[in-house]
Amino acid sequence: MILDGLQLSNKIKDDLKSKIKNMKIKPSLGIILVGDNIESKTYVNMKQKTCSELNIDIKLYNFPNDIDQQIVIDTIEDMNDNISIHGILVQLPLPRHLNTDLILNTISYKKDVDGLHTINAGKLFQNRDINLIPCTPLGCIELLDFYNIDVKSMNTVIIGCSNLVGLPLSMLLLQRGATITICHIDTKNTKELVQHADLIVACCGVPHLVKEDWVKKDAIIIDIGINKINDDSKKGYKLVGDVDFENVKDKCKYITPVPGGIGPMTVAMLMKNVVYLANNLVNNLVNNL
Amino acid sequence: MILDGLQLSNKIKDDLKSKIKNMKIKPSLGIILVGDNIESKTYVNMKQKTCSELNIDIKLYNFPNDIDQQIVIDTIEDMNDNISIHGILVQLPLPRHLNTDLILNTISYKKDVDGLHTINAGKLFQNRDINLIPCTPLGCIELLDFYNIDVKSMNTVIIGCSNLVGLPLSMLLLQRGATITICHIDTKNTKELVQHADLIVACCGVPHLVKEDWVKKDAIIIDIGINKINDDSKKGYKLVGDVDFENVKDKCKYITPVPGGIGPMTVAMLMKNVVYLANNLVNNLVNNL
Repeated sequence: MILDGLQLSNKIKDDLKSKIKNMKIKPSLGIILVGDNIESKTYVNMKQKTCSELNIDIKLYNFPNDIDQQIVIDTIEDMNDNISIHGILVQLPLPRHLNTDLILNTISYKKDVDGLHTINAGKLFQNRDINLIPCTPLGCIELLDFYNIDVKSMNTVIIGCSNLVGLPLSMLLLQRGATITICHIDTKNTKELVQHADLIVACCGVPHLVKEDWVKKDAIIIDIGINKINDDSKKGYKLVGDVDFENVKDKCKYITPVPGGIGPMTVAMLMKNVVYLANNLVNNLVNNL
Repeated sequence: MILDGLQLSNKIKDDLKSKIKNMKIKPSLGIILVGDNIESKTYVNMKQKTCSELNIDIKLYNFPNDIDQQIVIDTIEDMNDNISIHGILVQLPLPRHLNTDLILNTISYKKDVDGLHTINAGKLFQNRDINLIPCTPLGCIELLDFYNIDVKSMNTVIIGCSNLVGLPLSMLLLQRGATITICHIDTKNTKELVQHADLIVACCGVPHLVKEDWVKKDAIIIDIGINKINDDSKKGYKLVGDVDFENVKDKCKYITPVPGGIGPMTVAMLMKNVVYLANNLVNNLVNNL
């Protein structure tokens, strides 16, 4: 059975759209995009398009590749102080001359829609007063919840341990009672570990890594990879996940497709985080009257 | 082979003692102890004794069990502002009427010797600019390092996922290239998972949980449990770990004893963190001259 992220993301966006209509302020997102990396531009375009569909304001700063770091920092600080910007994100990756950690931590943790500030990461890690969760892990959890999949006691193997996806998702699954195993480039027997998993999360960026003989019958699979591989189509490429979908889909119980799985959920969760922050601001203003 | 935490901790304390003799200021630790929990008192006594051996000043606030939360918070804030206090810790657990998270986060993250502030937890989780690591996990890593045990690619099972021990230690091992599996109360097959582990970390507080038939030949075992069980001795009890040491010790390659393993390492790491903070302060003062 397909875990249909596209369909659920549309439902979530519709719900948000109605919610926004009834809000006293128009939610607003500030985005910083540096350079002309094509994939980054594609992602930012997608976010802009969705914001416009939902009636969320967007303020985009598109800086040249050689931008001075201080200008990026000043821009973020201006947005931190600007009461009419509710969420801020910096599209990653940044060019090498910029200090990504410093720039991410310049965003006020109260406007950190991507949940990458040290304080938000700490809250998530310690399961203390969590409010902003990175969009991709949050999208996975919402998709599992929508299909009533309870991960409690499931042996879960996560392939990949990035700060953006693998690690925060591991913590969210652990907090819901899953037993988690985290594999990575130095793991010596990933295949064997995956073979014992009830729930497989692939977020390593290796096209079709997880093959049919890696998967236990009736396992549940979340495929977070989005990889370009060449083909004979007009575009010259197609997008595939970290899982060999065609050969695995009949063996597992549930699987997310690529595209149409976690990708659209990620964008929907970004919108959800922006609306959450805008709502929070209104509530705080009302409470302080 | 025994991983002798007692011996290594003595060596570390000797080194710190020499270091302190040459320092321009006397390191100083502030401790808050609430109520009369016997175990908490025992731990605080041990910390006091070690501080005095090393010539580290201690400022102990021993509050009654029904202390007002605001007094605890004010006391911490005073110590935050006091330039002659370098490290601060609150002995856990706190009585129920006190908000542990709020109190721990009141400690300046720059004086947080136990590494439990949200910011220090976030740094550890994201592997960004880590400086203060909780003492027990840090003690495990130092003990492994001392015996030249490289955890890279080791299949590691951690039993227990507390914010104090299991989770931070899992992250430290992951950052060193271990493949980690985190088990807990909801794990359905802990024994089976442990049977495949190259490195076993027991930190669940269940006396003798890990038995001989749980352990693969030549595995490495870190036992963090300190459990009281009744016996016929004069004291009426003895301390045992989470591992059935007597029956396991000949099957594994390395094992930490209880007592004399991670316990003394934890106290030594606390001293190390205090000295680190005092040194930092001196360096910052010199740099700002």
